[in-house]
Amino acid sequence: MMSGAMQQKQDNVALPVFAAVTLALITILSVWKLKQFKYKLVNEAGVAMFYGLLLGLTVRLIWTDKGEQCPGNTTATNEQENTSDISMVNITPHGYIRNDKRQFSSHPEETFDLQVLFNLFLPPIIFHGAYTLNQKRFIANLGSVLTYAFAGTIISCMCIGACMYGFTKLMPPKEEFLLTHCLLFGAIMSATDPVSVLGLLSDLRVDLDLHMLLFGESVLNDAVAIVLTHAITTYTQMDAGLIFDPTAFLHAFVFFLGVLIGSFLLGLIFTVITALLTKFTRLHENPLLETSVFFLLSWSSYLSAEACGLSGIVAVMFCGLSQARYTVLNLSSEGRARIKQLFEVFNFLGEISIFGYMGYILLKFTCHKFEPVFISGALLSVFLSRAFNIYPLSFLLNLGRTNKIPCKFQHFMMFAGLRGAVAFRLAVKNTATEVTRTIFTTTLLMIGFTIWVLGTAADPMLRRLDIRVGVDPDENQEDHSFEIATERPDTTQGLWHSLDYKYLKPVLTHCGPPLTESLPQCCGIFARVFSSPRVQEDEEEELCEIEAGKNTLDLGKTESQQGSSESDSASEHQEDLLDGDLGLGTAPVHPREASGSSTQL
Amino acid sequence: MMSGAMQQKQDNVALPVFAAVTLALITILSVWKLKQFKYKLVNEAGVAMFYGLLLGLTVRLIWTDKGEQCPGNTTATNEQENTSDISMVNITPHGYIRNDKRQFSSHPEETFDLQVLFNLFLPPIIFHGAYTLNQKRFIANLGSVLTYAFAGTIISCMCIGACMYGFTKLMPPKEEFLLTHCLLFGAIMSATDPVSVLGLLSDLRVDLDLHMLLFGESVLNDAVAIVLTHAITTYTQMDAGLIFDPTAFLHAFVFFLGVLIGSFLLGLIFTVITALLTKFTRLHENPLLETSVFFLLSWSSYLSAEACGLSGIVAVMFCGLSQARYTVLNLSSEGRARIKQLFEVFNFLGEISIFGYMGYILLKFTCHKFEPVFISGALLSVFLSRAFNIYPLSFLLNLGRTNKIPCKFQHFMMFAGLRGAVAFRLAVKNTATEVTRTIFTTTLLMIGFTIWVLGTAADPMLRRLDIRVGVDPDENQEDHSFEIATERPDTTQGLWHSLDYKYLKPVLTHCGPPLTESLPQCCGIFARVFSSPRVQEDEEEELCEIEAGKNTLDLGKTESQQGSSESDSASEHQEDLLDGDLGLGTAPVHPREASGSSTQL
Repeated sequence: MMSGAMQQKQDNVALPVFAAVTLALITILSVWKLKQFKYKLVNEAGVAMFYGLLLGLTVRLIWTDKGEQCPGNTTATNEQENTSDISMVNITPHGYIRNDKRQFSSHPEETFDLQVLFNLFLPPIIFHGAYTLNQKRFIANLGSVLTYAFAGTIISCMCIGACMYGFTKLMPPKEEFLLTHCLLFGAIMSATDPVSVLGLLSDLRVDLDLHMLLFGESVLNDAVAIVLTHAITTYTQMDAGLIFDPTAFLHAFVFFLGVLIGSFLLGLIFTVITALLTKFTRLHENPLLETSVFFLLSWSSYLSAEACGLSGIVAVMFCGLSQARYTVLNLSSEGRARIKQLFEVFNFLGEISIFGYMGYILLKFTCHKFEPVFISGALLSVFLSRAFNIYPLSFLLNLGRTNKIPCKFQHFMMFAGLRGAVAFRLAVKNTATEVTRTIFTTTLLMIGFTIWVLGTAADPMLRRLDIRVGVDPDENQEDHSFEIATERPDTTQGLWHSLDYKYLKPVLTHCGPPLTESLPQCCGIFARVFSSPRVQEDEEEELCEIEAGKNTLDLGKTESQQGSSESDSASEHQEDLLDGDLGLGTAPVHPREASGSSTQL
Repeated sequence: MMSGAMQQKQDNVALPVFAAVTLALITILSVWKLKQFKYKLVNEAGVAMFYGLLLGLTVRLIWTDKGEQCPGNTTATNEQENTSDISMVNITPHGYIRNDKRQFSSHPEETFDLQVLFNLFLPPIIFHGAYTLNQKRFIANLGSVLTYAFAGTIISCMCIGACMYGFTKLMPPKEEFLLTHCLLFGAIMSATDPVSVLGLLSDLRVDLDLHMLLFGESVLNDAVAIVLTHAITTYTQMDAGLIFDPTAFLHAFVFFLGVLIGSFLLGLIFTVITALLTKFTRLHENPLLETSVFFLLSWSSYLSAEACGLSGIVAVMFCGLSQARYTVLNLSSEGRARIKQLFEVFNFLGEISIFGYMGYILLKFTCHKFEPVFISGALLSVFLSRAFNIYPLSFLLNLGRTNKIPCKFQHFMMFAGLRGAVAFRLAVKNTATEVTRTIFTTTLLMIGFTIWVLGTAADPMLRRLDIRVGVDPDENQEDHSFEIATERPDTTQGLWHSLDYKYLKPVLTHCGPPLTESLPQCCGIFARVFSSPRVQEDEEEELCEIEAGKNTLDLGKTESQQGSSESDSASEHQEDLLDGDLGLGTAPVHPREASGSSTQL
């Protein structure tokens, strides 16, 4: 009786989605149970990937499609060799492959695929990471983060590329690994992954400086990896030679700047829209609407950046940082709590889904190409490149930092270079030839290795290195205001302060001095238009005062101590409202907040 | 500089998703603005569909693909006529069509398509509707709801089928409309849509009995529509004649019972899993985990039912009803609030997305087939069939009901038969031939008509008919306990009471009498295994008492009045926690709750 219906509905996506949901449930429950038994070694990403593997194996054993063929097998693809290198191919949840030139079997099930997964879950994860970040600490470490993200990733890429080129010489000559292929692999493997790094960090709650360095690096190097991959692909298209071309280099550099600034601006634009909407309308009267609009606008920053070919991860990170600084001041307290909880759920389910899917593809994808030499080369070069990245750069950075990066931090950073979703996304774009499929397979194995081995070993490693864990993310160390003062000359500081406090805050929120005072006379109309339309209510005033106090401490000496002492008393009333959202460095540490504010199992 | 990146990322789904998100934002903001100006006529579904239309038009004007061809054009499809009627074809967001036999151009953008939309958003909408339902009232009206849903939908289907068959005789003879095609259209159009009906009802907050009748009918007739469509398709496959076949009829009836009972059981199974999980583990200590597990398990009820070819809508409705009755008692208060808010957001965004998408497809789909005769026939027959459904059945029901369905309710029910996502989902499955495309186009137009014209006119209509609006969903009228007493003999009542209170509650929650007492001696092991593992805490006891009080009133006379008076005092403390979740008929009406508990703009 049911079989008729089964057949009729065969082509719906409910079954694979149901399998995915079941997988997520099993992962959640088993991680939670394991943690109860004090198996601190378990991390969600690893368990999700493991169950994904099991599902992939099951699906493969049950529905093996004998007629399937892999593209780019050496016999039949000579005429396509030139184009297939750059054509984009999608891998579907069922392992079928299609591109615009040749169509393999296509199933409706492929609809719930990788792209949906990334567009749906990656933005909330990054946004949540940035939104709940201790902003003060992030700014304090910004210089170092930028160095690791940009210089470090380029060093890694070159190092892996060179290593792999050496290893490919050891391989049987039938493989046509060019230097550009090796560099492509370097670009893919050089970026550490914000999703897995965030998962690790929020589990362990390591020292805040270490948190900032690792998280900031993993987010920002996405932009570098995208640009490097793009530059190398373009370079390959131009000619297959090895000649160094200054024009191409310049082109790549300009492109890189464009991607970075463009993504930054897009993130900012969506914050400005959200802030103005919540400031000038009565949206705060309806928390459901407020939450929906906030969520959609923040998500838009990622989507618009990706649609323009920029880095969505960078855009949504800047959006999260600026939303937490400005927009949050305009929200109702219920809206604020709802937004935080909504992103928490997405962050939690997203991490599990993405890693489960990667595990699934590892066994389900039927066109894997395992090259033992290449894989062992990759394993070695990933460690080597990380060492060449962290130790020299830390040495250079420590020359300029008052608050040095200790050796034990360097060892842990060297160690915690987890790969994940970003590398997967880059590798999966091209699986048309044998070479690119070798790269894809090796990338998946490297992701599995870093997640399972390095991720699991992180906790004992931290204890071995004697690094503080279980740190309250809102903790404040007084000595950090010095670092800012040392790193930045007073003029930059003053500029940022006046931009933030005198102009951005009054325009985007109800806080700060009235615009009519801070703006010159000629901008009178502008000032009147953007002035706060409502009289400040009590709660808002308290919030603004906290913010003012935060600025004071942030920037050392420009403000009197009065704001700071006010904020301490004000934050007593606000502990439930803020709960880590604002990275309140000035508030006293509440032990209850510390245990409740981060995503933990 | 950007153009290279644009080209590289052309094939990602970020752009269409971004367009969808922007559309949702514009819809939310414009509905909200319009409502502020007291345009009560505006409803979200209609506005979302309108903006979807605009987007579809834009996309069509910009990216017209000249080479596109529609399947089933009369010249080339004779050899496929037999198979194409039953082959499943998917329409993608870009209007391309593919099936297993012929492959049209396929784009990666099709990934974020209809099926994902339905599987993602339909379950939370129905679940939210059932979860926040006033259960007492629903049970009181269950008999009438079942009559409208089952007898009414079959009457509608036959009536539309017969009408349309008459109209197709007026059409030029080149069209090959068989009676089965007309019946198929009848099956598609006979089911009213829970999404639009819920949107309308929660906006207007009409009389509770009317709410129950309309909502219950719209949810349950999904099962009937699925079965009818399936039966007619099977019947068409068997032979093209018009002979009445008793075996086929019996087969359809058994199939129908199977679908209904199967869906009901699946919904129940997932509630039992959730309830036992939340009862026997310490999941309630982590609200994030609790929320995630609850959400995933409730969603699973829909997915598993759809994967088995059953009615996911019916399954998730029963799941919502039973979760609100049992599982909610095991949750932490934070978890309870989070779950409600999470489903609220999904419900809100889901309605907008589904209707926006339908509007989009109406103009984007390039293979529409407009048949003026068919369309005007459909318009007439939809009204006629609704009248043949509501008035005679209400007359029959009123013979048995103590609390009669007044004439004005009947008029409004006749009027409020909005069509929507369910009809669309059935129609979109088959667009292979000219006939089925005519049906698809007409269905879309009928959906648009009922949403825009009937949905907009609902508010003036209610005022004209003098029906109460702005009703608190948790309101309780005393006279309803009589109706149950009249409709059901005391034995059934006693059976349900002992099943619910003595067995289900103690097994699934921490409430009720200990199992060791209620179960016979021989089930001692079972009783000990399922007994509540923890000593009842204060809050739980209060909750249980409220529940006990609710049961008392629900079932009239089996319990003493003591429980009821206790619950009145207990609910004072619980008003924030419960807030409509439990359909607390016994609690006094809190005006604040009334305005906060339903989804309103």
